[in-house]
Amino acid sequence: MSATVLSGRELAAAIRTETAAKAAGLAEAGTPPRLAVVVATADESSAWYVRSIAKAAEKVGITCDIVDLGGDAATETIRTALVDLSADDTIHGIILQTPLPAGAALEDLASAIAFEKDVDGANPLSLGRLVAGLPAFAPATAEAVVAILDHHKVELTGRHVAVVGRSTVVGKPAAHLLLDKNATVTVCHSRTADLPAVTSSADVVVAAVGRAGLITAEYVRAGAIVVDVGTNPTDGGGLAGDVDAVSVTEQAGGLTPVPGGVGPVTTALLLQHTVRAAAVDR
Amino acid sequence: MSATVLSGRELAAAIRTETAAKAAGLAEAGTPPRLAVVVATADESSAWYVRSIAKAAEKVGITCDIVDLGGDAATETIRTALVDLSADDTIHGIILQTPLPAGAALEDLASAIAFEKDVDGANPLSLGRLVAGLPAFAPATAEAVVAILDHHKVELTGRHVAVVGRSTVVGKPAAHLLLDKNATVTVCHSRTADLPAVTSSADVVVAAVGRAGLITAEYVRAGAIVVDVGTNPTDGGGLAGDVDAVSVTEQAGGLTPVPGGVGPVTTALLLQHTVRAAAVDR
Repeated sequence: MSATVLSGRELAAAIRTETAAKAAGLAEAGTPPRLAVVVATADESSAWYVRSIAKAAEKVGITCDIVDLGGDAATETIRTALVDLSADDTIHGIILQTPLPAGAALEDLASAIAFEKDVDGANPLSLGRLVAGLPAFAPATAEAVVAILDHHKVELTGRHVAVVGRSTVVGKPAAHLLLDKNATVTVCHSRTADLPAVTSSADVVVAAVGRAGLITAEYVRAGAIVVDVGTNPTDGGGLAGDVDAVSVTEQAGGLTPVPGGVGPVTTALLLQHTVRAAAVDR
Repeated sequence: MSATVLSGRELAAAIRTETAAKAAGLAEAGTPPRLAVVVATADESSAWYVRSIAKAAEKVGITCDIVDLGGDAATETIRTALVDLSADDTIHGIILQTPLPAGAALEDLASAIAFEKDVDGANPLSLGRLVAGLPAFAPATAEAVVAILDHHKVELTGRHVAVVGRSTVVGKPAAHLLLDKNATVTVCHSRTADLPAVTSSADVVVAAVGRAGLITAEYVRAGAIVVDVGTNPTDGGGLAGDVDAVSVTEQAGGLTPVPGGVGPVTTALLLQHTVRAAAVDR
């Protein structure tokens, strides 16, 4: 038995189609949606990701400015760029790409992104509002986890979900979004005693640790649903998930692929958020 | 066998003593610490609680202003009061007391409390910064949970903690603080399937649901530590916890009492935060 492949491609396409229609309407009304991606790294896989966002944006009718500050930009240079973009009425969405230069913390710098333009939910205010149940853009990756489960009609109410990873950008906000869906949520991490025992007691496992192939069959209960958030670069220039798919597919009931799972949904949600931000702006 | 009583009184006294010394120093230096409690309810148990905070504040040398707006204050009246207090240089800490009049949401109104004066961590920005690992005042009750466990030397790293309750003021921030202590944290709630099965698999149970006596022996593993955050008013004018202490004490290894557990620590931490806010102000 192999697990059902829980693809993200159809959902991403649907979100892009809806977003393109809204973007066209906004452009017609004189507010062409525009996204700025601030880059302060020479990291190759990051550059590849930023180009893919820009391409996806242009395809749905969102102008995408890549603001490249160079790999050794000072913290204050990055902050100033974010403040300026926040004040620029023609910009509706702002993403601060990671990694950042040594000494610059995303959580700190992202406070400079205007809350209304914070389409990747990086500003701590967005995160706090999310946790408090107030309107805010969620970090797109965390939202993609819930969206892909929804799309594939995975019931969450009362189910036990184990989130592996406690990062501010994925694990923690995903845990909150899953709680909002009435799941019972366990957050696991590097200090969790007997991780396989915890994850194999869960109905749904969300792997967001950034360690290629960490999650094998022994981490998964028979029939459980597994969401793979990992995007670990491989030597060959490809992407490897946090899940060992060959091992897990024999055990799981459903598994999101890498690539083609959470990734495309994340990008589509960033575009959806940008159009929403532009629509509020009007 | 009866569970060890994990009192909060000694810890609260120690925090008050330290806070009184700092308050005296601040007063001498010309910055007498001052706390404002905004009240917009005619609720009796709330009035009792506010008076107890005021008394505790005065005892450690913090001036406490009770700003009573009446039980039918308009949302905008409350917001204006919070904005004015935030702008008042002589005020260092601001608490917005609950319950609020119908139609007013704490999460929304608390955004009007200046982040630096938000000594009960009610502003969503405080919550977001907390989750993001940036300096912020935590909601005092949530912090008291961790403080009382620390005080009684309950190890948290790698241990499984079940938090029962997902409120913005206690359950969710407590879950984050426990994660920061390297616990594996499960958040349970009214929609959790088989709550006793989940809580009785945990090393530590934090009960923060607001239902008197919900947690009985069957919810607790032998030897587990139980923190009772409940403060449910009883017919006789007393307080009842969320834990049925008579039942649980035979099973648990340790149990915080109600009253005398999390409550006094919470109040002491509010005062500590106020003095810290005043010290930053200087």
